[in-house]
Amino acid sequence: MKQIGVGLLGFGTVGAGVADGLQRNRKVMAQRLGVDVVLKQIADLDIATDRGVSVGQAVLTTDAMAVINDPEIQVVVELIGGTGIAKKLVLAALNAGKAVVTANKKLLAEYGEEIFGAAERNGVDIYFGASVGGGIPIIRVLREGLAGNEIQSIHGILNGTCNYILTRMENEGLPFGEVLDAAQKAGYAEVDPSLDIDGFDTAHKAIILASLAYGFHVPMEKVLVEGIRNLAGLDVQYAAEFGYRIKLLAVVKRDGDEVEVRVHPTLVPLTHMLASVSNVFNAAMVRGDLSGDTLYYGRGAGREPTASTVIGDIGDIARNLMAGKSRYRRGVGVANEGQLRMRAADDIVSRYYVRLMVHDKAGSLGVMTTILGQHGVSILAATQKAQPEEMENAGYVPVVILTHAAKGAEIDAALREICAAGVLKEEPVKLRMI
Amino acid sequence: MKQIGVGLLGFGTVGAGVADGLQRNRKVMAQRLGVDVVLKQIADLDIATDRGVSVGQAVLTTDAMAVINDPEIQVVVELIGGTGIAKKLVLAALNAGKAVVTANKKLLAEYGEEIFGAAERNGVDIYFGASVGGGIPIIRVLREGLAGNEIQSIHGILNGTCNYILTRMENEGLPFGEVLDAAQKAGYAEVDPSLDIDGFDTAHKAIILASLAYGFHVPMEKVLVEGIRNLAGLDVQYAAEFGYRIKLLAVVKRDGDEVEVRVHPTLVPLTHMLASVSNVFNAAMVRGDLSGDTLYYGRGAGREPTASTVIGDIGDIARNLMAGKSRYRRGVGVANEGQLRMRAADDIVSRYYVRLMVHDKAGSLGVMTTILGQHGVSILAATQKAQPEEMENAGYVPVVILTHAAKGAEIDAALREICAAGVLKEEPVKLRMI
Repeated sequence: MKQIGVGLLGFGTVGAGVADGLQRNRKVMAQRLGVDVVLKQIADLDIATDRGVSVGQAVLTTDAMAVINDPEIQVVVELIGGTGIAKKLVLAALNAGKAVVTANKKLLAEYGEEIFGAAERNGVDIYFGASVGGGIPIIRVLREGLAGNEIQSIHGILNGTCNYILTRMENEGLPFGEVLDAAQKAGYAEVDPSLDIDGFDTAHKAIILASLAYGFHVPMEKVLVEGIRNLAGLDVQYAAEFGYRIKLLAVVKRDGDEVEVRVHPTLVPLTHMLASVSNVFNAAMVRGDLSGDTLYYGRGAGREPTASTVIGDIGDIARNLMAGKSRYRRGVGVANEGQLRMRAADDIVSRYYVRLMVHDKAGSLGVMTTILGQHGVSILAATQKAQPEEMENAGYVPVVILTHAAKGAEIDAALREICAAGVLKEEPVKLRMI
Repeated sequence: MKQIGVGLLGFGTVGAGVADGLQRNRKVMAQRLGVDVVLKQIADLDIATDRGVSVGQAVLTTDAMAVINDPEIQVVVELIGGTGIAKKLVLAALNAGKAVVTANKKLLAEYGEEIFGAAERNGVDIYFGASVGGGIPIIRVLREGLAGNEIQSIHGILNGTCNYILTRMENEGLPFGEVLDAAQKAGYAEVDPSLDIDGFDTAHKAIILASLAYGFHVPMEKVLVEGIRNLAGLDVQYAAEFGYRIKLLAVVKRDGDEVEVRVHPTLVPLTHMLASVSNVFNAAMVRGDLSGDTLYYGRGAGREPTASTVIGDIGDIARNLMAGKSRYRRGVGVANEGQLRMRAADDIVSRYYVRLMVHDKAGSLGVMTTILGQHGVSILAATQKAQPEEMENAGYVPVVILTHAAKGAEIDAALREICAAGVLKEEPVKLRMI
């Protein structure tokens, strides 16, 4: 049976998972693919630490360029992360005519054009299935399964750390800070959690999904990004009382010639499939013009789920190499640059959840609803909540308003005017609804 | 741009959807695939009826063989259904060297070996993504995305008619017959619904999934098949009270050298993702040794979702033809014939829900639990239910028992002995739990 040689760059958590999986399932893969995929070399600066997977000593090296230039290696797998050395090595591998697999979302979100350009120029495959959704084949689905669809929208829960925190906030009624502490202790959140909880990890993934769906690169500065750092337990509780669960969603959506790419905490109705996605699990709901709503669910991170997708990509490349031809050199599927444009945040239409801490005096509610109406924001539901214990007798009560669809500019103008009317104790809370 | 010609056999609901989708999204597909996919010919006995999609008159023909033999057509799409003329035409197309796309689960479940053999012999692609799960790319995921995994289990809701009936039975407390009538009137169930409600449609799909996961053909007579025809509203209600929802599941599972393939109504905990799949939607949960649990959800039938998957398959073949090589000639991924064997129904281990209509006299419950224990069946929970209105004063009460995992042979022997003990008014009801 013909062999395809694989070289890994990076022997961390995922690298060890890929090495283990390639060795453990080598036989079943060979039966499925008709080609023997062999792990030839692993490069890492640290080749002494035990990673819990047994590989021959000859397989380990500290010389990444030796792996890239090894004539027995046709597929180079980058699992270093970041945009420094990883970028250099990915470009070197592509320029050496090697097919590349990477799980590096930051690299693709920031330097996708350069990376894909190098793959194209060299006529080699680049696969990046594990860059979004870990063990969930969402990239594959967009590239292939739904290739015959106009993609109407994608709604994704793409960060396990945030989803874990939100699940515990809701289930146990805990405040954000306390759950974050626990998540850090349990290893579910980084020591510096900002990339996750401020939404940028999710935004990197949204950019990659948008490029696949709509064929052009979206720069990070055009993405509306709100994280969960400031989410109050009170709003999680009130959302639940209205029949909603708050999730950090990536939203990618087309409307005419405009595309929206945004990340924010979002109220999802309990009956929606995405509301059932809890703890560290991820999911993406994709609506195609033909397929209708489809959903993909699984573990969005972790050694083995990520390895599963990386190995699936390696398998695809092995099939391509057997056919003597690369299949995927581009990240983007459609070249729509210039035809589609990003919608400005002010023009994005959404339903809103608004919480206002209102002076408990006659007429306050009337003032607010009148102002909302004047700005074209119509009200779906409004409730004056019981006074939370800690603010008893403070003379303020929480009022929660769910709105019908309104433009960003409209709701913002209305809230500015409500603030100016002097009926509020603190800044209003504004969350989007799905 | 190079062209790939497509010929459709069958211009029914799905055929019209594929024709429409191919024309509507031709440009976006060309951009994504780098090849222009052109609908060349459609064969049907009836080319007069308006299908709500405009195709040139020259495209329509009553001569299926002319489509197969058209030198401008490289991909033949069979959407006739059944195992008569469809089988003949699929074999003719493969023997003429044409790649084939089919959505025909019955054909593959019954004659898969013959069809895949012909594709192999002729060195041409055969794709069948829409044969299981309609718009859900479950076949693609098993063939490609999870290719690096040992598949540990698949649990699927694969029949929209049954899921619609079960959803309404639970939500509205209606009996099976009444919902079936309504479903037939609404067009969600066939005039002869037996293929759906007796579980055989689901079993055909389970056979195809099993062949992809485990690499051998499972004959229908070795599949344990129970439908939902005899499901009582009372059990739907009791299951809900215990926190479960009843779904018709296809279960495909490996344990050592043994494989289980079965279809039956199953109690699924409300917290399980599959419990959230309602109405006509389908979903499959696949557990891989690396990926862990993953789930795929969407519309399992209908004109456009099915067309979405058929067109995705056509797109893949177009990519393959551009590379000058076929990729998928076999239905099965692994040749495990002889290494794996089917597990006998008696040896299948499951948790059970048992409802017994018991003589309302002292000692009855003791008799039953003793007998269960003697057969190695241990009890997780047991409740004596209030007497349903219609059997008031009849001297019988429903007792519901949830068991721990037990072998099929053990639970059956225990229930036989309980029947013989003369404490029951009617045959026991036995349902499996996930």
